[in-house]
Amino acid sequence: MSIIAASIEHILRPRLPLSLKPPFLRSHRCLFHRRLSSLAAASSASTATQDDARQPKTDEDTAVPAATERSLIDVNPPRGTRDFPPEDMRLRNWLFRNFREVSSLMSFEEVDFPVLESEALFIRKGGEEITQQLYNFEDKGGRRVVLRPEITPSLARLVIKQGKSASLPLKWFTIGQCWRYERMTRGRRREHYQWNMDIIGLPKVRAEAELIHAIVLLFERVGITSSEVGIRISSRKVLQAVLQMHSIPEHLFAEVCVIVDKLGKVTREEIEKELMIAGVSFEAVKGIIEVLSIKSLSKLEEVLGSEGEAVTDLKSLFLLAEHYGYSQWINFDASVVRGLAYYTGVVFEAFDKEGKLRAICGGGRYDRLFSTFGSDNIPACGFGFGDAVILELLKEKGILPDLIRHVDDIVFPLDEELEGPASQIVSSLRQIGRSVDLIQDKRLKWVFKHAERINADRLILVGKSEWQSGAVRVKILATREEREVKVDELTSPS
Amino acid sequence: MSIIAASIEHILRPRLPLSLKPPFLRSHRCLFHRRLSSLAAASSASTATQDDARQPKTDEDTAVPAATERSLIDVNPPRGTRDFPPEDMRLRNWLFRNFREVSSLMSFEEVDFPVLESEALFIRKGGEEITQQLYNFEDKGGRRVVLRPEITPSLARLVIKQGKSASLPLKWFTIGQCWRYERMTRGRRREHYQWNMDIIGLPKVRAEAELIHAIVLLFERVGITSSEVGIRISSRKVLQAVLQMHSIPEHLFAEVCVIVDKLGKVTREEIEKELMIAGVSFEAVKGIIEVLSIKSLSKLEEVLGSEGEAVTDLKSLFLLAEHYGYSQWINFDASVVRGLAYYTGVVFEAFDKEGKLRAICGGGRYDRLFSTFGSDNIPACGFGFGDAVILELLKEKGILPDLIRHVDDIVFPLDEELEGPASQIVSSLRQIGRSVDLIQDKRLKWVFKHAERINADRLILVGKSEWQSGAVRVKILATREEREVKVDELTSPS
Repeated sequence: MSIIAASIEHILRPRLPLSLKPPFLRSHRCLFHRRLSSLAAASSASTATQDDARQPKTDEDTAVPAATERSLIDVNPPRGTRDFPPEDMRLRNWLFRNFREVSSLMSFEEVDFPVLESEALFIRKGGEEITQQLYNFEDKGGRRVVLRPEITPSLARLVIKQGKSASLPLKWFTIGQCWRYERMTRGRRREHYQWNMDIIGLPKVRAEAELIHAIVLLFERVGITSSEVGIRISSRKVLQAVLQMHSIPEHLFAEVCVIVDKLGKVTREEIEKELMIAGVSFEAVKGIIEVLSIKSLSKLEEVLGSEGEAVTDLKSLFLLAEHYGYSQWINFDASVVRGLAYYTGVVFEAFDKEGKLRAICGGGRYDRLFSTFGSDNIPACGFGFGDAVILELLKEKGILPDLIRHVDDIVFPLDEELEGPASQIVSSLRQIGRSVDLIQDKRLKWVFKHAERINADRLILVGKSEWQSGAVRVKILATREEREVKVDELTSPS
Repeated sequence: MSIIAASIEHILRPRLPLSLKPPFLRSHRCLFHRRLSSLAAASSASTATQDDARQPKTDEDTAVPAATERSLIDVNPPRGTRDFPPEDMRLRNWLFRNFREVSSLMSFEEVDFPVLESEALFIRKGGEEITQQLYNFEDKGGRRVVLRPEITPSLARLVIKQGKSASLPLKWFTIGQCWRYERMTRGRRREHYQWNMDIIGLPKVRAEAELIHAIVLLFERVGITSSEVGIRISSRKVLQAVLQMHSIPEHLFAEVCVIVDKLGKVTREEIEKELMIAGVSFEAVKGIIEVLSIKSLSKLEEVLGSEGEAVTDLKSLFLLAEHYGYSQWINFDASVVRGLAYYTGVVFEAFDKEGKLRAICGGGRYDRLFSTFGSDNIPACGFGFGDAVILELLKEKGILPDLIRHVDDIVFPLDEELEGPASQIVSSLRQIGRSVDLIQDKRLKWVFKHAERINADRLILVGKSEWQSGAVRVKILATREEREVKVDELTSPS
């Protein structure tokens, strides 16, 4: 028996009158008898005599009762959605904190938009997957609304709304939930969270260079190296140049991009067929497929010449990357097109080099989105970075952080009579900024186990004899050191 | 002309060849000519000669262009919802940070649930306003779903789902968006964010005492005093006792509570009528109305006797409040009932003492909610604390915090040629944890204005002659002190 356990038994010796049963036994109408009796067993610890202590007790925690099967509700969240119990929430908070810290290093400001938006904001030509899987419905007022599939259109909407009060360039980030509705054939989820960073009002590729810097900073912070993850970069102007060479009308551009983006997901034959149905000539299709296989800027320059914007943009970007010092993270790959219809220039995506997972994040320049909303054009670019693939990757690499709970103090009155003094101590400790868990009606063994589980620094035992002399017993859990401390000393700011 | 401006002109003197126009003038297809020309004016600052500098320039920031009226989308978010531009987001983050810090002091764990839930979770008897204003719809798979109006049912669902793996008591908090659909007659919003704290598995009122401590800690942190805000407390067991006195069947309890909660919003006559329609006898209605006017525990004890749970619970709670030291914040008021059908015991709400606003937060004990979900009962209590009323109150009191942006460094290359070196410096500074805004294509005057607006500590000017000797000019903006600093010194961790 440890010193502390001995001292507790000493404290416990002044017994409560037997008539003072734990009041909840009288007052609480609890239908769950197994639970009640286990609560009673736990509670009795505080009024236990040594005789009681000899009775067999289970060491199991008081657990949530198993539900009866009769009329139980569906305990799962809606199909394709997630609950975040504490351990998952800690992980999510850790990831979001990294998103926020990188955004802050980059000097971006946080913004947010409603998860529910007007459907009109997402109706676009181009046949994107994202607009075909809208989680849309009609509200009670007959309006077509949608749980947003992405955030960029809301951001553009707010930029236009801000009008002259916003000073360009704007550097905005947001972290929000996005939704899609598809048949759940592959067990894919219907929601995910997405970190977005956007620069509005900068036409040059150094805006893209900044965005890619943010992505690299994020990877570095969470422990990913450039041997594990790469960022593939191209420009939609590559395809635009090919289309121009073959005199394909400009209005087909977005559709062609969306079709070409499926390369790798569907067969090359299907892509070719879709392009030709869209109205692209056989020669142009051949030209497109050929250009997409290019993996170096010098080769691209050979094919397109050195004067076009595709080549000059990409060369500037790769030069800037050298200055930033993240060249090892990036490579040119003409097959990167991205699936959103509105991209017009540089596009990029990060991927795991083993090629096991979907893209970790993706983005690009969208210089014509504002005009499709009826506003004048504003040059802009941005990226979306989901919460799912990065966590999968970190898990696979075995570098998910070990996020354990931490609490400064546990306060445990050894006697129900000491509930008041315990509350007073708890209140004073919180006042000086310490996190405190107040525990009652448990056995001391449970409290020690709990202290370990929540990673508490100190266990503060409020016992009768110590309290009478204005003191409590304090156990430092890491060192097992234990001493009597005056309450004044305990609760004065150190 | 300041010293720094003079030194810049010196740096600028080596002129760029005239043929080197800012590349975006050539490459960017910008339909917005006014904007382009203002960008060009700003850009020209970096290549300006002294002659150029004498030309008249406007001091206005580059602003987002006014949208053409033709086919502009609706720039407002859906009716009853909010965007959060940066200044509003800072305020929201500040409030949420306080919610989180108090939750942490209380040793609560954060959890989260989908904003979209099964409608079944919110279908209850009792005629609550909240279930009559469900933002519900049918998804494409024919399932009845709802944008959750409140969070407690999701929390209960997760507790049941966790089953034996969860060790009681659970102390959980969450901050999430809640929705309702009502005709927008009063300009009321359809969404708000809510901080919830819940204790699951504690039958005694010290759980409520802990929750109220959290609310008081929050008020104190945001600068509210007990002369401005009070917490009214009662127990549903008061009404239960009156119903029992008059032999009103138990199954009417929830409905009676929901009706009685409207007192103050609708006339007393209407309440009486509704109660009688529900099946409550005239005498019982009289008894209910009478008991609701009681404002002291001693008077309550006179009417109900000292043995009942209503009185013993409330007396215990008020005694605990004395130990915590927050008695000045609370008062007994039998008229507090709260509008949710599932409360069974202590109920409470915080309100501004001038009585101008709706309740700031509200909560109570819901010991029978779990059984309505088909699970065994688990004693539980919690509160919801919205983001709207507290901010209204802080605004009214004039104590909203002044949350200005802050950035450590602004880096500004004085010459387009120095874009690379500037990127290198930016990257190194971020590497050592400094937040950095990279500015280009602006006039120095704009940069100084911007530095003030974003509350930057330092302005780092990358000029040609300094760069050639491995240095930059650093201006400390608070002191206006300016000196040349070697790049190595600038970017080594201090």
